[in-house]
Amino acid sequence: MFRNQYDTDVTVWSPEGRLLQVEYAMESVKQGSACIGLRSSTHAVLGALKRSVSELSSHQKKLLEIDTHIGVGIAGLTADARTLAKWMRNECLNHRYVYGTPMPVGRMMTDLADKHQRTTQTYVRRPYGVGLLVAAYDKSGPHLYQTCPSGNMYEYHASAIGARSQSGRTYLEKIFDNDQLKDASKDDLIMHALRAIAGCVGGDGELTKENGSVGIVGKDEAFYLIEGDELQPYLDRLELEGGTGGGDDDDDDDDDEEEGEGGEAVEESKEEGGDAMET
Amino acid sequence: MFRNQYDTDVTVWSPEGRLLQVEYAMESVKQGSACIGLRSSTHAVLGALKRSVSELSSHQKKLLEIDTHIGVGIAGLTADARTLAKWMRNECLNHRYVYGTPMPVGRMMTDLADKHQRTTQTYVRRPYGVGLLVAAYDKSGPHLYQTCPSGNMYEYHASAIGARSQSGRTYLEKIFDNDQLKDASKDDLIMHALRAIAGCVGGDGELTKENGSVGIVGKDEAFYLIEGDELQPYLDRLELEGGTGGGDDDDDDDDDEEEGEGGEAVEESKEEGGDAMET
Amino acid sequence: MFRNQYDTDVTVWSPEGRLLQVEYAMESVKQGSACIGLRSSTHAVLGALKRSVSELSSHQKKLLEIDTHIGVGIAGLTADARTLAKWMRNECLNHRYVYGTPMPVGRMMTDLADKHQRTTQTYVRRPYGVGLLVAAYDKSGPHLYQTCPSGNMYEYHASAIGARSQSGRTYLEKIFDNDQLKDASKDDLIMHALRAIAGCVGGDGELTKENGSVGIVGKDEAFYLIEGDELQPYLDRLELEGGTGGGDDDDDDDDDEEEGEGGEAVEESKEEGGDAMET
Amino acid sequence: MFRNQYDTDVTVWSPEGRLLQVEYAMESVKQGSACIGLRSSTHAVLGALKRSVSELSSHQKKLLEIDTHIGVGIAGLTADARTLAKWMRNECLNHRYVYGTPMPVGRMMTDLADKHQRTTQTYVRRPYGVGLLVAAYDKSGPHLYQTCPSGNMYEYHASAIGARSQSGRTYLEKIFDNDQLKDASKDDLIMHALRAIAGCVGGDGELTKENGSVGIVGKDEAFYLIEGDELQPYLDRLELEGGTGGGDDDDDDDDDEEEGEGGEAVEESKEEGGDAMET
Amino acid sequence: MFRNQYDTDVTVWSPEGRLLQVEYAMESVKQGSACIGLRSSTHAVLGALKRSVSELSSHQKKLLEIDTHIGVGIAGLTADARTLAKWMRNECLNHRYVYGTPMPVGRMMTDLADKHQRTTQTYVRRPYGVGLLVAAYDKSGPHLYQTCPSGNMYEYHASAIGARSQSGRTYLEKIFDNDQLKDASKDDLIMHALRAIAGCVGGDGELTKENGSVGIVGKDEAFYLIEGDELQPYLDRLELEGGTGGGDDDDDDDDDEEEGEGGEAVEESKEEGGDAMET
Amino acid sequence: MFRNQYDTDVTVWSPEGRLLQVEYAMESVKQGSACIGLRSSTHAVLGALKRSVSELSSHQKKLLEIDTHIGVGIAGLTADARTLAKWMRNECLNHRYVYGTPMPVGRMMTDLADKHQRTTQTYVRRPYGVGLLVAAYDKSGPHLYQTCPSGNMYEYHASAIGARSQSGRTYLEKIFDNDQLKDASKDDLIMHALRAIAGCVGGDGELTKENGSVGIVGKDEAFYLIEGDELQPYLDRLELEGGTGGGDDDDDDDDDEEEGEGGEAVEESKEEGGDAMET
Amino acid sequence: MFRNQYDTDVTVWSPEGRLLQVEYAMESVKQGSACIGLRSSTHAVLGALKRSVSELSSHQKKLLEIDTHIGVGIAGLTADARTLAKWMRNECLNHRYVYGTPMPVGRMMTDLADKHQRTTQTYVRRPYGVGLLVAAYDKSGPHLYQTCPSGNMYEYHASAIGARSQSGRTYLEKIFDNDQLKDASKDDLIMHALRAIAGCVGGDGELTKENGSVGIVGKDEAFYLIEGDELQPYLDRLELEGGTGGGDDDDDDDDDEEEGEGGEAVEESKEEGGDAMET
Repeated sequence: MFRNQYDTDVTVWSPEGRLLQVEYAMESVKQGSACIGLRSSTHAVLGALKRSVSELSSHQKKLLEIDTHIGVGIAGLTADARTLAKWMRNECLNHRYVYGTPMPVGRMMTDLADKHQRTTQTYVRRPYGVGLLVAAYDKSGPHLYQTCPSGNMYEYHASAIGARSQSGRTYLEKIFDNDQLKDASKDDLIMHALRAIAGCVGGDGELTKENGSVGIVGKDEAFYLIEGDELQPYLDRLELEGGTGGGDDDDDDDDDEEEGEGGEAVEESKEEGGDAMET
Repeated sequence: MFRNQYDTDVTVWSPEGRLLQVEYAMESVKQGSACIGLRSSTHAVLGALKRSVSELSSHQKKLLEIDTHIGVGIAGLTADARTLAKWMRNECLNHRYVYGTPMPVGRMMTDLADKHQRTTQTYVRRPYGVGLLVAAYDKSGPHLYQTCPSGNMYEYHASAIGARSQSGRTYLEKIFDNDQLKDASKDDLIMHALRAIAGCVGGDGELTKENGSVGIVGKDEAFYLIEGDELQPYLDRLELEGGTGGGDDDDDDDDDEEEGEGGEAVEESKEEGGDAMET
Repeated sequence: MFRNQYDTDVTVWSPEGRLLQVEYAMESVKQGSACIGLRSSTHAVLGALKRSVSELSSHQKKLLEIDTHIGVGIAGLTADARTLAKWMRNECLNHRYVYGTPMPVGRMMTDLADKHQRTTQTYVRRPYGVGLLVAAYDKSGPHLYQTCPSGNMYEYHASAIGARSQSGRTYLEKIFDNDQLKDASKDDLIMHALRAIAGCVGGDGELTKENGSVGIVGKDEAFYLIEGDELQPYLDRLELEGGTGGGDDDDDDDDDEEEGEGGEAVEESKEEGGDAMET
Repeated sequence: MFRNQYDTDVTVWSPEGRLLQVEYAMESVKQGSACIGLRSSTHAVLGALKRSVSELSSHQKKLLEIDTHIGVGIAGLTADARTLAKWMRNECLNHRYVYGTPMPVGRMMTDLADKHQRTTQTYVRRPYGVGLLVAAYDKSGPHLYQTCPSGNMYEYHASAIGARSQSGRTYLEKIFDNDQLKDASKDDLIMHALRAIAGCVGGDGELTKENGSVGIVGKDEAFYLIEGDELQPYLDRLELEGGTGGGDDDDDDDDDEEEGEGGEAVEESKEEGGDAMET
Repeated sequence: MFRNQYDTDVTVWSPEGRLLQVEYAMESVKQGSACIGLRSSTHAVLGALKRSVSELSSHQKKLLEIDTHIGVGIAGLTADARTLAKWMRNECLNHRYVYGTPMPVGRMMTDLADKHQRTTQTYVRRPYGVGLLVAAYDKSGPHLYQTCPSGNMYEYHASAIGARSQSGRTYLEKIFDNDQLKDASKDDLIMHALRAIAGCVGGDGELTKENGSVGIVGKDEAFYLIEGDELQPYLDRLELEGGTGGGDDDDDDDDDEEEGEGGEAVEESKEEGGDAMET
Repeated sequence: MFRNQYDTDVTVWSPEGRLLQVEYAMESVKQGSACIGLRSSTHAVLGALKRSVSELSSHQKKLLEIDTHIGVGIAGLTADARTLAKWMRNECLNHRYVYGTPMPVGRMMTDLADKHQRTTQTYVRRPYGVGLLVAAYDKSGPHLYQTCPSGNMYEYHASAIGARSQSGRTYLEKIFDNDQLKDASKDDLIMHALRAIAGCVGGDGELTKENGSVGIVGKDEAFYLIEGDELQPYLDRLELEGGTGGGDDDDDDDDDEEEGEGGEAVEESKEEGGDAMET
Repeated sequence: MFRNQYDTDVTVWSPEGRLLQVEYAMESVKQGSACIGLRSSTHAVLGALKRSVSELSSHQKKLLEIDTHIGVGIAGLTADARTLAKWMRNECLNHRYVYGTPMPVGRMMTDLADKHQRTTQTYVRRPYGVGLLVAAYDKSGPHLYQTCPSGNMYEYHASAIGARSQSGRTYLEKIFDNDQLKDASKDDLIMHALRAIAGCVGGDGELTKENGSVGIVGKDEAFYLIEGDELQPYLDRLELEGGTGGGDDDDDDDDDEEEGEGGEAVEESKEEGGDAMET
């Protein structure tokens, strides 16, 4: 009720020193379907739950190749993500053309974050409504970055964004705490990714070869998508464990409710993780 | 009631992370007359119900040729559609001039969707108020794409947009589930299209050679419009089946009411299909 | 009452997916005096009722020559119409200069409609407040087009716009249904035009050689205005039939009331004819 | 009361299809002092009532020479009129420089009206707050034009604008109906002008050689101002007739009241004459 | 109360056809200290009451030399006046440079008034908040002009602007009526100016050599300021007459009250003199 | 309460002919710490009370050298002052570069005031929130100028700006009235400055070598800052007189309260001194 | 409640002469985690508390190297800080390229502060939401600067910004008062920094080698970060003193509450330190 004065223009500060329009844009990330990422000391892996707008349509692409050494997972406005991916592809092409080498991921990420930041400082454009998980491998090894509409950028060992991503994040924290991440083999990583993403499936849904998607990049291995029939063997292993369904229903429901409350969720997001604007 | 603060500017996020002006623009697609599309492994077919503003006027064109290998069906603001079609024709001409080959449809669609996305990020222009179904045939076979005012773009096996399109979509889902689509002959596809479009005719209306329109494109077959007398034989076959009238009146009425409720319909559209902005 | 939020900016969508400012601009067309058009297979004819702001002034021109093969009739803001006519004349001159041939009417109309559409998509300019009836003859025979402030454009067999145009439209529909239009002689067309326009005269007014105006274009006949004394013989024939007065008073009154109700009329206009924005 | 939403921006249409800001600008013309014009078949004459802001100041110029063959009378914002007159003088100079001939009046008037129209279509400038009566003589004989803030332009036999101009208009209509205008001599025209302008003088005022002004242009006669002592003989003749005073007091009062009611006057102005925006 | 809708933007017309922001700007002229001007057939004289913001500061300059043949007196915003004076000096310098002669005053005044007018037609700048009295001598003799924020410009025999200027204006009208102005000697003019300005001094104030200022220009006499000790002899003569004090206290008080009422004063100003925008 | 309509845009006039945003900006000058200036016939001296944001920080610079012959004292927004000082330094450098001589102070001040004025006439920038006291010595002797956010500029014998400056001003007026200023020696001026500034110290504060600052410029003496240990001897002399404390507490408190009342203070400021916008 | 009119646009002054949007932006600095700085006569040291958005992410960088002789600590919006740091790096590179020497810190700081100030004077951009502590060593010895969103810049002996920085500031004031700062050794400075930063840790948190960070620059010592294992020995020493925990809990809680109250905090901030806009 008391916010309405400061939350319709991206260049207006609230009396508490917050940019509410940027926080609202971050809400749109939570409405995309889940996307998770994790990395060992040799590989970076992305996993995503593809949505299908209709039985008749193909599933939406959630994991996109940017260059042979970079792939992104998206959650939020599809059209914004496509625009950003196009820009990233061009940056990589230009770098290869000028320097003859793949673009260093750190530099790419800084430029990308600055591209986000600019939309938060002038009134001409709205902030982007999409969060990206970027998996990459360059001279300094595998990387996993996450970007926010606010222009923030973090490097992660593992992360999860999008709707019902809390379950996935909880699983990832568990394996990280058990130190299972650092030395995981390529196959282990894929299975971890599938287990995390399976936790993000809604109530009566199930992780299938149609809606699941995994991308992997590593030393001397170009970014490669595992989907459809190629994904089935992994799903079979997962099924044996008993885990393709929407396991954490209770958590999910809570999460849904919170999202429904809007304003509250904004508050909460500042505690939870991934999108605090200040450092 | 509680939305009024965030829904008059296309660059303003609502607290829930939505762009309401873009959602409102998507409503205008629902007010155009119905347009459907479907494809087999060899052909892509469009069907449309032409509106006539008056007994004295010619019927409005609903299916437009863009290039010999691309045709579009439109639902929404006619003037916006004409502007977009003109732009697409220019793109195809330029591509042929520069590369000497027809423009790949995927590239055309990405550019078109980006053209939509740009109108949703700056305050200078409003989002386009039109949805397009694009049928095309290129090196990778037949394609059916759908665009939204939000800048989203989907590839479909079959789809239906515009007023009362739910009936048509239901029919298309049925034949898709029965696997009748993939190997359908050219004539089968045309008959499917007519049956789908006949379901979208309003209460006491009827599908006639005046208001019906079918477009087809396939391997070595340029986009070709079947209208008027040429359409009559197919309509005769349809009549024998007993199906040119407005068969699914009950559905239609429901659909109409929902549209009348406005705000509600917006909510619902997020469930239904075709225009969820997030992925 | 409930519209006030979405109807003051041309680039703002209402929750129902409508552009209310464009619809309001279309109301101004209804306030201009009547203008009608019709075509046979050989000629296109325009008729108009000229208004005089005062006894002392000349009557306002309603029919304007654009080029030898194109004439327009206008209803709505005079100043906007004059600006558009000037632009059309320039286009025709440029075409003749560059190609050495008269401008094809279809191309002219598309360009004109796009000029309208642009004013509906950016906030810099307001939509034009004028509707045009364009009578033309080119290689593909006689044409009659109508444009709207929305950027829509239709081809008609016969049409009527402006205040009390319903009576004229009714007459035109009758002769079209009786198939009297297609093979009508030049003189028949002029008489039809006069009868239609006579029906649009207000309560106690009368169609005279001062306020009536007819324009005709056909094969090898440049656009030619019949006014004043030259019009008298036709009016004499009309008088013999008993038809220069405001015949359809009842209709007119109804029509007036509806216009007075404003908002209602907008709704209704979507049913009636000539200016539905969607197709 | 119910208009406030649509009347503060010149590019916003009211639901009735009107541009209220343009109509408001037309009110400012009614607040200028009266200006009248009339023409015979050989001469065009302007008459005006000059206001003096103070006993100590010179009277404001109401009739301005544009070129030897064109003169204008103004009613409304003086500063706007001066700006327009300066522009007209430049146009005439340029035409003489480029073509070596006086500028045709019709062309000048179209350009002038378009200059007005442009201010009504974009939000950058306000509409001009002045009406002009233009008396001119060119190859096609004498002309009398009137312009409006709306960008409309009319050719008149005789006209009157400004405060209390109704009386003058009534007189002019009377002599026009009696066919006294067409063949009037130069002196007759001047006397008609003075009689018309005398009718526009307020309550206890009087037409004197100080506040009266007459301008005349004709074949081989450059635009010439008759003021001061040169005007006295005509005023003497007028006095003999008994007509320099404010004769139509009752009308004037009515007129004043109507102007005081503002909104009402706007309505009424659409009936009365001279400034209906639609044709 | 009922004006608030139309009075915050300079490009918005009120329903009565007035530009309220321009009228408000004219109020600022009334808040400057008084400035008067008068001319005989040989000289033009300005007089002003200098304000001192503090005992410690020098008095503000009220009379400024523009060129040897032009001087201005100001009332209103000092900073605006200084900007305008700078512009006028540049114009004069440029004219001398290009043509080798002093700038004709009429031309200077037209350009100055147009500079004012432009600020009233676009929304980019506010109207200037200053009125100028311009005394000049050129080939056509002595001149006295007055400008308004509205872009109006008048030639005067004598005038007074600023706070409590009514008393001065009354005195000037009296001597004008007695025909004492035209043939007054240079010294007479100076005494008239001092008497007029003495009438504008507030309640217990007095006209002294510190706050008084007189400027004079005439044939072969460059604009020359009489201030301080040089002014004392004239003040002594004035004292002998008994007239350096604030003689017209009652008038002043009335005037002050009226200004305090704001809105009312605006109305009134239209009656009084000097700043009616229409002619 | 009744001002809210006209006080949020710098280009909007209030009905009383005032620019409220400019007046509000002038309030910010009153919130800076005190700054005083005075001049004899040979020297110009500035004095200031430096604020320290914290025990740990250096004191803020209040007196800045612009060129060897010009120094400024500031009160108001520090960042605005720094920007203006930078601009002034550039102007001086440019003048020396082009003409080889120090910039005349009068010319510098006019340009500076115009720079202020421009921010008050367009909506693009806000008015500067700082007042400057400029002490300078050029060919015409020592000068003391004061600028306002309004674009006004005054020459003073002595002046004081900033919080609690009334006490300092009172002291300066006293010595001016006693004619102690004109022929004061350099040391006298410094002592006068310290006494004046000591009067501006808040309740329990004291003038010390840390927070006090004096700048002096004179014939053949470049602008020179006396601070810290160099200031101590003067402070010792002042202490002997018994005057480094906040002597005029009562006045100060009053002054504080007035500032707290805001709106009232604006009114009052028009009476008091230093910032009346009109002349 | 009563502020809402003046606090949504950065170029609007409140009636009290304040720029509320700038003050709101300064609130965002208080929401960043703590950052402290201090300097002896030989070294400048920064200390910071790194936040981690999640267990899985790396800690956010709080101390950034700009050039070998300059390092910055940040509190506030991370994305804004990154943009500013990038700009500073470019400035340093350019200076080295053009002059062949490291950029003088004073000049860098003035340019940086002006970059901030510009965002507070035009409506195009919002003020930056970040405060910087800049530690540097150049020819004039070690420096510690602090910048504010307002465009202010201060030189400090020691300072602390960000959440719960009051405890750190208190500690720094204590050692400054005890004169322990000036002659402290490099190791002393690091220990002081750690003690100050340890005081800023929240309730049950602790200063660890993961979240602590120290940067140091001095004569012939390039800016160098001490983090992780390298930091552990110092933390061990600190632990022996008993000081890595959140020692000043009571203060912290108070501080938190104040921040929660928003508007109040703004008031208070003017008293406290570090961000008064006026001088």
